[in-house]
Amino acid sequence: MRFLELSKIYECIQADLAKARDNLKSISRVDFPWLSEQLGYVVRSSGKVIRPALTLLSGRFYNYDLKYLLPMATAVELMHTATLVHDDAIDKSAVRRGKPTLNTLWGEETSVLLGDYLFAKAGETVSDTHSPRVIKLFSQTMATITSGELSQLLGAFKLEQSQQQYFQRISKKTASLFSLATVSGAILSEAPEKAVKILEEYGYNLGIAFQIVDDILDFTGTEEKLGKPAGTDLAQGTLTLPAIFLLERYPEDNPIKKVFENKDKQKNIERAIELIRNSSIVQECYGIATEYRAKACQNLNQLPENPSRQALTGLADYIINRKY
Amino acid sequence: MRFLELSKIYECIQADLAKARDNLKSISRVDFPWLSEQLGYVVRSSGKVIRPALTLLSGRFYNYDLKYLLPMATAVELMHTATLVHDDAIDKSAVRRGKPTLNTLWGEETSVLLGDYLFAKAGETVSDTHSPRVIKLFSQTMATITSGELSQLLGAFKLEQSQQQYFQRISKKTASLFSLATVSGAILSEAPEKAVKILEEYGYNLGIAFQIVDDILDFTGTEEKLGKPAGTDLAQGTLTLPAIFLLERYPEDNPIKKVFENKDKQKNIERAIELIRNSSIVQECYGIATEYRAKACQNLNQLPENPSRQALTGLADYIINRKY
Repeated sequence: MRFLELSKIYECIQADLAKARDNLKSISRVDFPWLSEQLGYVVRSSGKVIRPALTLLSGRFYNYDLKYLLPMATAVELMHTATLVHDDAIDKSAVRRGKPTLNTLWGEETSVLLGDYLFAKAGETVSDTHSPRVIKLFSQTMATITSGELSQLLGAFKLEQSQQQYFQRISKKTASLFSLATVSGAILSEAPEKAVKILEEYGYNLGIAFQIVDDILDFTGTEEKLGKPAGTDLAQGTLTLPAIFLLERYPEDNPIKKVFENKDKQKNIERAIELIRNSSIVQECYGIATEYRAKACQNLNQLPENPSRQALTGLADYIINRKY
Repeated sequence: MRFLELSKIYECIQADLAKARDNLKSISRVDFPWLSEQLGYVVRSSGKVIRPALTLLSGRFYNYDLKYLLPMATAVELMHTATLVHDDAIDKSAVRRGKPTLNTLWGEETSVLLGDYLFAKAGETVSDTHSPRVIKLFSQTMATITSGELSQLLGAFKLEQSQQQYFQRISKKTASLFSLATVSGAILSEAPEKAVKILEEYGYNLGIAFQIVDDILDFTGTEEKLGKPAGTDLAQGTLTLPAIFLLERYPEDNPIKKVFENKDKQKNIERAIELIRNSSIVQECYGIATEYRAKACQNLNQLPENPSRQALTGLADYIINRKY
């Protein structure tokens, strides 16, 4: 299956997405030279900007007003970046997107405060939307993401985890922010409530699909493409969908058990990767992600037809087919 | 000099302060049993609630509307608690207010996420004020506090620090939140701009006085009263005003230098405490704190006379005279 590149998908919002990127960069222009250096580092290594794109695309169906949509698009990426900075500090991750993490460069303590600074800047930026509803949703989403991260941390290295727990967790830690990105775009463009709901469901289900694919890629991807070693989730004690399937298939002699018991960790991570790659688990997980992709898009045709609607479908395809 | 106890000072807002405390407790009533336990622990050990009191007292001069003042009073204490949780995790502090810290009980990783959760809840609560100005100020203050904490962390164990740097740091990490507490109370009660300004200056200068006294008590207080060992700031590499004065007096053979060089750390902390206690430094620092107390109160007489105005003066006296 052919799928479009991100730049092609983002075409109808390209100029405005560039403005959001500029806003992100300007956050690093602060009055401390050292803080500026550190923040600049985070912002420069900024990724696919899917969340700001979702806000802008969702805002294009009704009253597209950059005055409110641009701060929102910026805030949603700032919040995402802040959670990554804290995640890396907590997991003591060494690399992300092929670059040393902030905690590697400046220590975990500085990372905690830099994450806080980014959360604060996100809050300051979202207040420029002047929408009490969106501002409240923003903080509620931050609480939801954090409680998802807490579940993950407190469940680390525990084998007894159901698919249901997995879906609860990714719904909180990933889908909630995707859904905030789309809902806020809809609300800020004065979309009717029915359209807000359709875009909320799109964002939520896309987020679930995105995270499942992320979790598959952690087993099937290459270090070069991923920007971090494969099997990172297992190494950090996180049971994702492919791992849960592998445990279900081999309840007795299973390399994941040994990883969690810290026995021959690296060797057993590699064995788990090997077993998953050579089984039907990958396909099965893609099947589930594809179902969520379909669920995401099922009601989009009730929105006005425009380039943004096509872009949302294109983005859903991209998310399933991406290799990193 | 006789000074009033806090309960007496808080008399005119007692019932409403109790509601703010209830709000804080209800934050811990969440859907995870374990999260509830952890948050309950933070909220139960909640201290003097000076910041919520400042918001309520500042709100009593004009249109005192609890619908907006109560969420603000709650949010300001939630933000304060969140910063303490992160500070303790960063400093790896073992005790606070005589109790083991969250990081001692559940680890630094969990503390980082619990702090984030409290920040999020603070943001959610402040959005109930429905005041774009206050909501924006709230996030700006969080950014200011964080940059103050960053200065402190990056300046740790460095001897070359001026009084000016000290005042800049405490202005960011302490006075900014005191000032937010008073300003927001004024704004939410529809005070005229002149009164907003008077209460802002009161909060700011009171915050500086508060922090100077805190830093004195770290040398003069007892572990029993402080709820943590004396000399904690030095142990963590933080140069406070009394320490800066001591370094100025004994530029050559100074125990603080040895503490920062990690030579006979405990013995030299005790020597520094001893030297400061037996010098005029304590009195000199109290003199400066008292100047800020006077600056804080100098324009209060331009506000309408009411029990709240007396309480603000009483609180300023309390802050200077407190022993913990």
